[in-house]
Amino acid sequence: MYPKQFELLIESFRKLSGVGAKTAERYAFEVLNWEDETWKQFVDAIQNTKTKLHQCERCGNISEETLCEICKDNTRDQHVICVVQEVRDIAAIEKINEYQGQYHVLNGVINTSKGILPDDLNIASLVERVKQQEVKEVIIAMNPTIEGETTALYLGKLLSEYPLKVTRLAHGLPIGSHIDYADELTLLKALENRTEL
Amino acid sequence: MYPKQFELLIESFRKLSGVGAKTAERYAFEVLNWEDETWKQFVDAIQNTKTKLHQCERCGNISEETLCEICKDNTRDQHVICVVQEVRDIAAIEKINEYQGQYHVLNGVINTSKGILPDDLNIASLVERVKQQEVKEVIIAMNPTIEGETTALYLGKLLSEYPLKVTRLAHGLPIGSHIDYADELTLLKALENRTEL
Repeated sequence: MYPKQFELLIESFRKLSGVGAKTAERYAFEVLNWEDETWKQFVDAIQNTKTKLHQCERCGNISEETLCEICKDNTRDQHVICVVQEVRDIAAIEKINEYQGQYHVLNGVINTSKGILPDDLNIASLVERVKQQEVKEVIIAMNPTIEGETTALYLGKLLSEYPLKVTRLAHGLPIGSHIDYADELTLLKALENRTEL
Repeated sequence: MYPKQFELLIESFRKLSGVGAKTAERYAFEVLNWEDETWKQFVDAIQNTKTKLHQCERCGNISEETLCEICKDNTRDQHVICVVQEVRDIAAIEKINEYQGQYHVLNGVINTSKGILPDDLNIASLVERVKQQEVKEVIIAMNPTIEGETTALYLGKLLSEYPLKVTRLAHGLPIGSHIDYADELTLLKALENRTEL
C-alpha cells in the first residue's frame, strides 16, 4: 500500500507494545512531517541508545560508563541497597529526593508460570555485593503484586543469613485516595500497618 | 535522572502527539531492550523516511520515486480523480479494493479559523490536472466535518466550469451501527440520501 520504506517504519513502531496498526501509521506520518532537526535528533538518539548505553557493572542501572552516576557518587550512603525490579523504578524513587543509598536492579521478578526463576534475575550479584560491601540494610522495593511479593519473600529468606536489616516499602492507602474506592487487600494492609497518631 | 543519551531518546518520543512522559519512557526502555536486528531496522527506517520518501509530483501521495505507484500504474483509470485530505486516506480507500482511478492529495482542508485558505492546499495542481488530463469525474472524499464540507463545496464550485462530473462520498449510517446511537446530523443525512429497495 505505502512505499516499502514507509511500511518498514510503520512496522518498527508496531514493535512497541501497545502500539497498534493505526497508531504506528500515525507515528510514521508524524516522523515524515518532522523538521529535519527533530528527525536527526531522533535518529541519533535511537542509534546511540544501543551503542552508548550499557548496564552498570555493579547495580544494573543504565549508564554511559562502566559504573552508573549513582554508583560513582561517593557522597551517597554505601551501606544501604534498595532492590528494584526495573531500571525505571530507580527514576521513580530518585524523584522523591529522599533516598541517598545504592540500588540493585533485579531485571524482573520471580514468575514461575512464565518460567522466570531466581537464577534468571540479578540475585547472585546482589548476594555478592552484600558479602563484599559493608551493607547494613537492604530495602526491598518490589511492586505490590503477587510476583513482587514472592520475590520479596525469597530475597528476605536468602538475605536472612547475613548480618543486616532487610526492610520493604510500606503498603497502604495511596495519598489522595478514598477509602471506599480502595480494594480490600489495600485496606487490609492499611489497617494492619496502622501507625500511632 | 537517566543518562543523557537516554533522556534524548525519551525527548524524541515525546515529540509524537499523544505521547506523554510515561509512555515515552516506556517506549525508550523497549527500544533499549530490543534485539540488535529490530533496533537496526528502526534506525534505518527512520533514516530512510526522510531521505528516500518524497511527495509524488503528480498527486501528492508519498513515494520513493518521482511518481507514486498509483500514478505509474497504467492499468488504472486515468479519467477519474479521487480528492482526499491526507495521504493516509488513500490507504483507507485502497484497502476496500474497489476504486481503480487516480488520487489527488490536498494536504489539509480549508479552515479559516486556523488561517488555512485554498491557496495553502494542493488545489491549483488539481485544476491543472483537470485541464490537462481528460478527466471525466472528480470524487471529493473529504472527511464529514465542517471543514471537509467547506472544502468540498469550494472544490465543487471551482470545478463546475469544467466539463466533468463532480461527486462526493455518501453520508449516512455506518454499517453495524444503531439508529438510536446515531447523531442527529448523520440520521438526517441518512434520511435525505435514502435509496430505493
